[in-house]
Amino acid sequence: MALEAAKSQYRQVADLLRAAIEREEYAPGSLLPSESELAAEYGVSRVTINRAVQLLRGEGMVRVLRGRGTAVRAIPPIRRNSNLRYARSSREEEGSRGAFDFELKRLGLKPATKLAQLGQVPAPETARQVLGLEATDTVLIRKREMYASDEPVLLATSYFPWILAEQAGVTETDTGPGGTYSRLAEIGKGPVRFSEDLRVRTPTAAEERFFALAETQQVYEIVHISYLPDGTAIEYREDVLPTHQWVMHFEWNAENDTKSGETER
Amino acid sequence: MALEAAKSQYRQVADLLRAAIEREEYAPGSLLPSESELAAEYGVSRVTINRAVQLLRGEGMVRVLRGRGTAVRAIPPIRRNSNLRYARSSREEEGSRGAFDFELKRLGLKPATKLAQLGQVPAPETARQVLGLEATDTVLIRKREMYASDEPVLLATSYFPWILAEQAGVTETDTGPGGTYSRLAEIGKGPVRFSEDLRVRTPTAAEERFFALAETQQVYEIVHISYLPDGTAIEYREDVLPTHQWVMHFEWNAENDTKSGETER
Repeated sequence: MALEAAKSQYRQVADLLRAAIEREEYAPGSLLPSESELAAEYGVSRVTINRAVQLLRGEGMVRVLRGRGTAVRAIPPIRRNSNLRYARSSREEEGSRGAFDFELKRLGLKPATKLAQLGQVPAPETARQVLGLEATDTVLIRKREMYASDEPVLLATSYFPWILAEQAGVTETDTGPGGTYSRLAEIGKGPVRFSEDLRVRTPTAAEERFFALAETQQVYEIVHISYLPDGTAIEYREDVLPTHQWVMHFEWNAENDTKSGETER
Repeated sequence: MALEAAKSQYRQVADLLRAAIEREEYAPGSLLPSESELAAEYGVSRVTINRAVQLLRGEGMVRVLRGRGTAVRAIPPIRRNSNLRYARSSREEEGSRGAFDFELKRLGLKPATKLAQLGQVPAPETARQVLGLEATDTVLIRKREMYASDEPVLLATSYFPWILAEQAGVTETDTGPGGTYSRLAEIGKGPVRFSEDLRVRTPTAAEERFFALAETQQVYEIVHISYLPDGTAIEYREDVLPTHQWVMHFEWNAENDTKSGETER
């Protein structure tokens, strides 16, 4: 039973360290005390401290900075209120450029978006199918790298039918107050229903680098689709987000008894 | 650059193995060839195979059976259609005992539910707050361990105000066709709106054992709340699910311009 007891001990230490970080006893972004200091403080071996820190690393509570030590999580998890974030009043609040701007400001974090790709491209197969496009049709791609107070927290890649994007005037870098959805609404093509498929997966090598993830960390991959009232999909988007940085909130009404929600999309 | 190339190689091998598993070239539940056989087949070192298998293990594509080898994932990821699963027609389809029964049967998997706890208990603090109960009020706890073709895939713990549960007659083991929500609907207390908060976290030791998770695997923790038309919460539930076994689907209508979705719950 010695093994079981040891396991329990490092989990206990991890719980104490996690609670201390949540109470901000160790300041956000600061360095943790050294392993030997922590071992003395908690009255356990350095091996136990090391295992506890590895656990917290996987959770994103701390980050190992090579040659400098172990840094405490700089920003708290962000709550993504899927229902609220796309409401016009949210997207346009104080001139926000869309949902992300809005939710970051609420948390007192500094939003920043870097356009990684913007332009007219052939539609990737998945986007093409969802948007009901022909093989020769093109799409507007808007690929953004998004930061919360300098921490990379989101990679979002949207695809809109090119013709629609041109009509709405969202082919430019700045889509104006309220972002793309407000411009679409202005030409009578504002989305009224959304669907998201969310899974958790291992990051690609590029994602691991961009988010500076530890080896055991994973990402949410969300396929977000926006619909017009008649059910036409007008946006296909893929979001990638480190799991430790986000809490996802959804609300919905019970479906009627008609299995209307059953349509395969 | 040698390190970068090695990393890339094990990821490439993992991609090939994953694709082969998805094509069912390696049958669900069967043992993978040995590391030396795979090394020969893919023309790489055993170290590379080992790293690729570790990656797939973290993803839940394979499982290490001590002393026996590495087994291929037995069941595919389950799609949780949050909108559809609670519709009455779904819950009652072919006498299903609720949402889980319904979605498992759809996939050709065998649902099984084991009641781990059922009874009248003091309300835990979080449930009490959400349900608007007094400290002296009690709740019905329904804690279920749920299996898909013998694989543990879900731990669900529901809390209902005790008085309501008694009225609806859901204090028994079998809640009848359509499950709890159908009984609640029969006394005019059927839920009409749901909210879920979803996060990803390290499993507890007990969860790690129950789901037989590898050390790097994580779980979804979902707080599910069911509401009456007047906004009263009648169920507080915590679901725990291994991330590799589920894909989450949500659909919702755009909020009005009134920030109605902003209510903090």
